[in-house]
Amino acid sequence: MLRHMMRRLVLFQGQHQQPTFRALRGTKMKTPRHSPGLALSIWTLSSKPRDFSQPNSSWSPEMRKVYDHYNALCATDPENESEKSPWMKLPSYNRSIKYATGGIHLSKLIQAEARLFTRNVKEQGATFEYVVFINKEEKSCVCVFQSGRLLEGAPGHVHGGAIATMIDTVTGTLAGFLSGPIMTANLNIDYRSPMPLGSVVLIHCVLDRIERRKTYITCKVTSADESKLYTEATALFVSISVGHLFGSRS
Amino acid sequence: MLRHMMRRLVLFQGQHQQPTFRALRGTKMKTPRHSPGLALSIWTLSSKPRDFSQPNSSWSPEMRKVYDHYNALCATDPENESEKSPWMKLPSYNRSIKYATGGIHLSKLIQAEARLFTRNVKEQGATFEYVVFINKEEKSCVCVFQSGRLLEGAPGHVHGGAIATMIDTVTGTLAGFLSGPIMTANLNIDYRSPMPLGSVVLIHCVLDRIERRKTYITCKVTSADESKLYTEATALFVSISVGHLFGSRS
Repeated sequence: MLRHMMRRLVLFQGQHQQPTFRALRGTKMKTPRHSPGLALSIWTLSSKPRDFSQPNSSWSPEMRKVYDHYNALCATDPENESEKSPWMKLPSYNRSIKYATGGIHLSKLIQAEARLFTRNVKEQGATFEYVVFINKEEKSCVCVFQSGRLLEGAPGHVHGGAIATMIDTVTGTLAGFLSGPIMTANLNIDYRSPMPLGSVVLIHCVLDRIERRKTYITCKVTSADESKLYTEATALFVSISVGHLFGSRS
Repeated sequence: MLRHMMRRLVLFQGQHQQPTFRALRGTKMKTPRHSPGLALSIWTLSSKPRDFSQPNSSWSPEMRKVYDHYNALCATDPENESEKSPWMKLPSYNRSIKYATGGIHLSKLIQAEARLFTRNVKEQGATFEYVVFINKEEKSCVCVFQSGRLLEGAPGHVHGGAIATMIDTVTGTLAGFLSGPIMTANLNIDYRSPMPLGSVVLIHCVLDRIERRKTYITCKVTSADESKLYTEATALFVSISVGHLFGSRS
C-alpha cells in the first residue's frame, strides 16, 4: 500500500508534478482531523501544506523587486486570456514528500521529524530565502535567492556548500519538472567569485539535453542585476522509479 | 589595523594554521572581560572558542566507535614518545574566523551574528555531526560524519547539497592545512548511491597535487565499514591572500 502510494510521489527536493500542483492550488481544504489510519485511507483529500516561497519581512528591497518582476511575468494578460504566460511560480515546502497530493499526511508517517535541508531553520531570513520561477516554453528557470547570516563560510561570505545546495535544488527542480522523478548523479561547480553574505543573486538554469534516462542542466549564478558572475555549473540527473529509494532495483 | 590582523587569519571553513592551533591548545586562559577596544588591543591573548568536534549524546554507537578508533590513532605511544603519531584531530568552531588566535574577538567585531553553515543549528544531532582527523605524513584526512534529520532531500535520504557541503568542508580543510589560505574554485561530485538520513559515513580525502597556487584534492564518501561507496569527488582550491575577500586584488 505504502509503496503503491509512494509511486505517485515526485522525489527530488523542490520539485513537483504539474498536475498534482494544479490540483493542490485549485482546492482549499482544511486539515482533516482523523487517526493516521483514516488519514491514510483518504490521502487524496489532503490539506495544503505551507508554501515557503512567499514574501516575508526578512526580504531586502532588492529581493522583493526581483520577485515582483518575475511574479508579474507569471500573470496572464487579462486582455488576451487565450495566451497563457509561459512563466509559473513554484511552491516550496519543508519536505519534498509534500509535493504530492497526500504528501502532508505521508510526511507525518515517514520520518515525521525530518525536514528539507533548505527549509530547516524557522527564523525567517537566517538561511535560504528563495523562489523558483519556471519558463515552460524555454525549459528554463530562474531562482531568486537571498543568503542569510547562518550560511557563512569564509568570514562575511557564503559557504561553497550553501551555494552548491542551491544549485542542486534549482537544477533538480527544473530536471524534475521536465523528466519526473530523478536523483542527482553529478554536480560540477566552478566558483568564479566569492559571494558576500546577505547577497541577493539569481540562479539561471536551462535544459541542455535529455538522453534516455539522463537529464543535463546548465546553471549560472549572477548578481541580481546580472552584471557579476559568481558561479557556473553543470548538473546531471538520472530518472528513477520511486522504489529505487526504498530498496527496489527498478 | 583590521586588515593587518586579518592577514593572520586562515580563511577557509574548517581549517586552521597548525602553529596557531598548537598555541591555542597549549594555553588555558579565561575569557578576558574588557571593552571591545581593549579586547582588540590584547587580541593575541584571546580565550579558547568552543570546539564542536567533541562527542555528544546525539552520536550513535557507530559514530562513537569510528571516532574512538581514529582518536586512538592520534595518541603518541607512551613507550616511544620520540615517534609522534602522524594523525591529529582538528577542532571545529562555529565561525572560520575563530581558527586564528584572537578570532573569538574578531568574530564579535565582524558580522557578529554570522555562523558557519555546518555549525549553525544548536540542537545536537539535528544537522551535521562531524570530526576531521588529518594524517600529516600521508597528506590525507578522514572525516566521520553523522547526518541529522534536518538534512533531508528525497524522503528519508540526505540532500545532495548537504553531501556537497561536507565534501567542500573536508576537502577544503585538507587543502587549507597543506596550502594556507585558499578558496574553493571547483567541486566535481559524482553521486553513486542515495545516502539514508541518519547514516554514519566516512569522507576520505587525499592530496592529488599542488601546482603553484592550485591544490587538487580527491575524495570518496563511504559507509562507516567502507563497504559501500556513496559519493566520489574532486576539488580544486586556489591560494589567496586574505585581502582577496575584502576587495584587494592581491
